[in-house]
Amino acid sequence: MAGANDSAMAIAVSEAGGLGSLPCAMLKHEAIRAEVASIRGATDRPLNLNFFCHATVEADAHQQTRWIERLRSLYEEFGLSADVPPPGPARAPFDATTCELVEALRPEVVSFHFGLPAAELLRRVKAAGCTVLASATTVAEARWLEAQGADAVIAQGAEAGGHRGMFLLSETGADLASAVPSQPGTLALVPQVCDAVTVPVIAAGGIADARGIAAALMLGASGVQIGTAFLFTREARISALHRAALDAARADDTALTNVFTGRPARSLRNRAVRELGPMNQDAPPFPHAAAAMAALRTAAEAEESGDFSPLWSGQGAPLGHALSPDMGAGDLVLQLSNQVGALLRGIASGD
Amino acid sequence: MAGANDSAMAIAVSEAGGLGSLPCAMLKHEAIRAEVASIRGATDRPLNLNFFCHATVEADAHQQTRWIERLRSLYEEFGLSADVPPPGPARAPFDATTCELVEALRPEVVSFHFGLPAAELLRRVKAAGCTVLASATTVAEARWLEAQGADAVIAQGAEAGGHRGMFLLSETGADLASAVPSQPGTLALVPQVCDAVTVPVIAAGGIADARGIAAALMLGASGVQIGTAFLFTREARISALHRAALDAARADDTALTNVFTGRPARSLRNRAVRELGPMNQDAPPFPHAAAAMAALRTAAEAEESGDFSPLWSGQGAPLGHALSPDMGAGDLVLQLSNQVGALLRGIASGD
Repeated sequence: MAGANDSAMAIAVSEAGGLGSLPCAMLKHEAIRAEVASIRGATDRPLNLNFFCHATVEADAHQQTRWIERLRSLYEEFGLSADVPPPGPARAPFDATTCELVEALRPEVVSFHFGLPAAELLRRVKAAGCTVLASATTVAEARWLEAQGADAVIAQGAEAGGHRGMFLLSETGADLASAVPSQPGTLALVPQVCDAVTVPVIAAGGIADARGIAAALMLGASGVQIGTAFLFTREARISALHRAALDAARADDTALTNVFTGRPARSLRNRAVRELGPMNQDAPPFPHAAAAMAALRTAAEAEESGDFSPLWSGQGAPLGHALSPDMGAGDLVLQLSNQVGALLRGIASGD
Repeated sequence: MAGANDSAMAIAVSEAGGLGSLPCAMLKHEAIRAEVASIRGATDRPLNLNFFCHATVEADAHQQTRWIERLRSLYEEFGLSADVPPPGPARAPFDATTCELVEALRPEVVSFHFGLPAAELLRRVKAAGCTVLASATTVAEARWLEAQGADAVIAQGAEAGGHRGMFLLSETGADLASAVPSQPGTLALVPQVCDAVTVPVIAAGGIADARGIAAALMLGASGVQIGTAFLFTREARISALHRAALDAARADDTALTNVFTGRPARSLRNRAVRELGPMNQDAPPFPHAAAAMAALRTAAEAEESGDFSPLWSGQGAPLGHALSPDMGAGDLVLQLSNQVGALLRGIASGD
């Protein structure tokens, strides 16, 4: 959800009884401080800060040149110079200074994507009193996370939108690309992760309404993580183009693509995904593919086109589209909670 | 399940209260008659006959030559002649003579994979008193099946083993290949299909234990179709190599591959999938890729290797492996039924 929501959604979700989360991967430290101050001023409920912790791979000029070359005809179409463009928004991994920030802010929960930070940093996060969650896309990753000390595992099924949390692989493209077609779906992954670890399991991927939540509970999950459905709420900070694309989305019109950032992530299939992907072996490693694509995105968006925008979406988007227009994130939490209760009571009474 | 089970499993499942199914796609008519006679002699419970109804594409000598060329180094490794090998087992689509057979045998249920037969044949099947089921891999396919007269839709999520039922696409490789990365997972697909059609929905894909069944019911399914778990039962007619591979399977070690038959199907990742696939643009259209691969399979199996065997498996295989060894298919049905009941009662009582 990096870039898709801010403190307003976290406040609304936490106040409604969910665990409000602030995606920090694309925020500078001052922005994280300001956002957390806003949240703490508005609610005394628990807060989750989410960070990326990918291994840093240096930008390789040769790879960058090859990627720009691959994009050349598109650059020409938009009248862009094919000089290497300036870097896009940073996606910095969790490091020692971020750890100091967490120690100062003391969020009740810290969640990590792409593995876990170095052991000493993780120890400090836990010593600060934070409950640690982390994403697993396979049973092996779940076991690894538990062994390193994660307090709960988010089992991220292949249906999920945005970046796959996959991490027990080298950061080079070939390894990630060959693992993409084998990523397990939520319904298969969750019970197998539940069987493999003793910590609580949070199900993610394709869950966008009460039916998905109830199903996840049946699979053995202790909770769920919902992304795409919240992109339809009032507090989402996505572009009108992204929102319009989500409104028109079909479950079978997304793909795991590395063309936007260099790492596999689920997006709606727009022109970028169709013409360059879904997986492109010339895309530089995460996050270095992003800068060159950002220039195309900006040019296309100036023409009201989302053809080159990362249109992150899970396969549950049509379920989110069915929500009342302009629903608040807090109302969504309450609605889901009530509906899950009714669904379980209905099963119990044999309806 | 074509090739993986016969009348013995159908009898055991039906007697235990499930809907026993006989996969007919790879059986000659005399064999179907004999199998149905065995089943009718052993149980008076309802029976399902399953057929493929892919559009027939003529074998193209040019494509076949290219495919053999692609396999040449493997043929050389096994000392095989790279002349075009004899066709493998036929996979004939449902046609007028099969329809006559169905009219004579009058199974209570007929299920179709890869769409539906021509309207007149479908009318005759229904006029014979058969309830018609058919597989959908997308919401659009589900709507199409309902509009054509299917009595129930099997929503086949991407986790499922064996052939994807996808059919609203041309039979040429490019269309199928581009749709593979976008196939929805079961948890996302089932509720969306339930919202789109009025006929009952049967969930399939990744369901291999009571948790998966209970989850499918929560998603809105009226029933479930289970494949891989039954490959672990005593009545399964799979090779020892296939069984050993299933016992060692991980959820993240399967892929949708067209290398075995020309159509995307989920197999464990063996050498064939790794070196030739998972999707290979040189594979001739279904089922014409199969003959050339069958020669390699036979040669490898003679050396006790499953490197070139289609090791059909859903992503739930490790859940099947957890079953008691040598469990009968009937006992599995009873166990699943009891466990689902307990799970739902547990939720009801707040356990």
